[in-house]
Amino acid sequence: MRDAIITLTTDFGEASPYVAAVKGVILGIHGAARIVDLSHEIPAHDVRAASFFLASSIVYFPPGVLHVVVVDPGVGSERALLFVEIGGHRLLAPDNGCWTELARRVGGAPRVIRLEDEGYWRQPVSATFHGRDILAPVAGWLSRGLDPALLGPVIAQWTSLNLPQPELTPNRLRGEVVFVDRFGNLITNIPAEPWASMAARGARIEVGAAEVAQISRTYADVAAGTVTALVSSSNTLEIAVAEGSAASRLGAKVGTRVQVTATG
Amino acid sequence: MRDAIITLTTDFGEASPYVAAVKGVILGIHGAARIVDLSHEIPAHDVRAASFFLASSIVYFPPGVLHVVVVDPGVGSERALLFVEIGGHRLLAPDNGCWTELARRVGGAPRVIRLEDEGYWRQPVSATFHGRDILAPVAGWLSRGLDPALLGPVIAQWTSLNLPQPELTPNRLRGEVVFVDRFGNLITNIPAEPWASMAARGARIEVGAAEVAQISRTYADVAAGTVTALVSSSNTLEIAVAEGSAASRLGAKVGTRVQVTATG
Amino acid sequence: MRDAIITLTTDFGEASPYVAAVKGVILGIHGAARIVDLSHEIPAHDVRAASFFLASSIVYFPPGVLHVVVVDPGVGSERALLFVEIGGHRLLAPDNGCWTELARRVGGAPRVIRLEDEGYWRQPVSATFHGRDILAPVAGWLSRGLDPALLGPVIAQWTSLNLPQPELTPNRLRGEVVFVDRFGNLITNIPAEPWASMAARGARIEVGAAEVAQISRTYADVAAGTVTALVSSSNTLEIAVAEGSAASRLGAKVGTRVQVTATG
Repeated sequence: MRDAIITLTTDFGEASPYVAAVKGVILGIHGAARIVDLSHEIPAHDVRAASFFLASSIVYFPPGVLHVVVVDPGVGSERALLFVEIGGHRLLAPDNGCWTELARRVGGAPRVIRLEDEGYWRQPVSATFHGRDILAPVAGWLSRGLDPALLGPVIAQWTSLNLPQPELTPNRLRGEVVFVDRFGNLITNIPAEPWASMAARGARIEVGAAEVAQISRTYADVAAGTVTALVSSSNTLEIAVAEGSAASRLGAKVGTRVQVTATG
Repeated sequence: MRDAIITLTTDFGEASPYVAAVKGVILGIHGAARIVDLSHEIPAHDVRAASFFLASSIVYFPPGVLHVVVVDPGVGSERALLFVEIGGHRLLAPDNGCWTELARRVGGAPRVIRLEDEGYWRQPVSATFHGRDILAPVAGWLSRGLDPALLGPVIAQWTSLNLPQPELTPNRLRGEVVFVDRFGNLITNIPAEPWASMAARGARIEVGAAEVAQISRTYADVAAGTVTALVSSSNTLEIAVAEGSAASRLGAKVGTRVQVTATG
Repeated sequence: MRDAIITLTTDFGEASPYVAAVKGVILGIHGAARIVDLSHEIPAHDVRAASFFLASSIVYFPPGVLHVVVVDPGVGSERALLFVEIGGHRLLAPDNGCWTELARRVGGAPRVIRLEDEGYWRQPVSATFHGRDILAPVAGWLSRGLDPALLGPVIAQWTSLNLPQPELTPNRLRGEVVFVDRFGNLITNIPAEPWASMAARGARIEVGAAEVAQISRTYADVAAGTVTALVSSSNTLEIAVAEGSAASRLGAKVGTRVQVTATG
């Protein structure tokens, strides 16, 4: 039963007992749940990083899987906790916008329920660990087949994360680095399509103050050490250094401006 | 079947092949075992850190789950390896005291068996990797339903970890930081209860040489950057900085002294 | 069914969404597959490190388990992707030699199939992420019972990794450090057997410019801080510091020369 798969995405870090506590609570309610770790290394309290992570990974999962997200700088405040269903994907997450970019990419209207029925929560509820005391037990119940409608009211308003959107004009594309992977590759928010056409006609690519001279299909197409622009696996503009780190070479990080200017 | 869940807690680190070897041996004996990672980032050889980790996480698991703990600085020496049953929780661990704080919190008398029957071990047994050669195969057999009584004799003496206990007097509470989480929050060993009552009447809170001026229910209740005292998710005194790191701000780490003095 | 276990070994790092994407694609094809993480912290693009990792861990798994390896500096180039069966172990990996040391240790002739039938791939195939678009879906299909013969042609030539082999003469053994674990222990490629015999007669052990004065059976046999030589859990010469790090103490790392000279 696909419903019995529960994924976890947190900013707890690999060393803390918090991840283990969440797993224990889930298994205490549903011993047959199959827990799949997505990452526990989302940068601490970084809702924007969580947003990129979810938008880049949840889309590959089959419908019915339940995704629990605990990146929750507002824990204990009045921020709500949500059950979200979008394009068949099901999430439990704080109402901090971490899932709205995913929804935008998936398209369609999400069904959003605010968790209110405390009967499905662990008692007493800690003021600082709703992942363990609310999201984990609710995940356990949902994976056992509980109807989400029982969790609380359907709501029509929620927090949206306003991610910086690229400016795409016929002669210039402006965006920024949204993720630096472990290889130092720079993933930007400039979509592959306007970029590839512009590049085919001739274009100058700038990352911060540096210029990228080369364009290639993949890393292996250029000599080691060459800075190159290519289409990322997320179908956006990516800047890489073959067998090296573009982040180190160009001094770039999340937020660094990227600009493509037509020259042809 | 809950018995078929085996959790792993080690200090091997995420990069080493040791974790994989342990998983391979378990699955070789019981292909249907469901392995759940708790952490492989316990600080190297740090039995005290393992003790805090286990006491803070195993309690949330349902009875019957088998918890394998490989934090084993004494590997190859005469230290025993143990099967422990306490309050329904089942552990396999070296006899170095890593589980005794958990037992103290759970309460009741543990059933402790010293692993002696080499028929359930992998042969030959390496002098440096009992996790792979003894604990993993024994975990595999137990998860298949083996009666723990067959593993060796019940014993009445074992190594206890003497953790520093807080001094709790009517006008002063003295303890220390026992865990620093990824957010830089300082988890202490001072129980919430005497602390909260004292704080309600008025109290001075000191962490090392620094004073904590604020008390709150959760992180979000104070302005960003504020040092605040609150009740941790383990129900002890916690020191945090809203949207920041108390560890960095106060220069605190595991072992830093914490003192609460009644002023009201 | 053991066939439904799929392990993952990558150099993606714990923080990236790439691991999650691979898991999603697998579960989308085979919702009942049981995914087991081996490591996502193989050093970036380090095929030699992947080789050591696989040779040191896959051997402990039962036959039939499917091991997916994504350490793929040549992604997008003409390098092939392979299905390999060796001694009952099944792997999906790039044709970069990461599995040939494992095959050498297991012995016997591998069955090697080049992945060519795009009908089992995710479409469109990204130029930079064949782990997600080729290896993951093929793993899903194989775990559902697909006959590997349908994936592509059996091939007789592939890339072999030429690891530095130790020089073993009657009076001198020369090798190098091939892995440094989290404890700072130095695992070498000098087999236990010639070494142990030579050591029993009297031998000088050198690691880089440093000499190792002590020999022991395990870490606990020598005083804290002592540098000692012992048999590793991989059955090779290992250099360790009791309750300390041999890597730090001796300034050693992967590639540091190790030499044993008979003196007896």
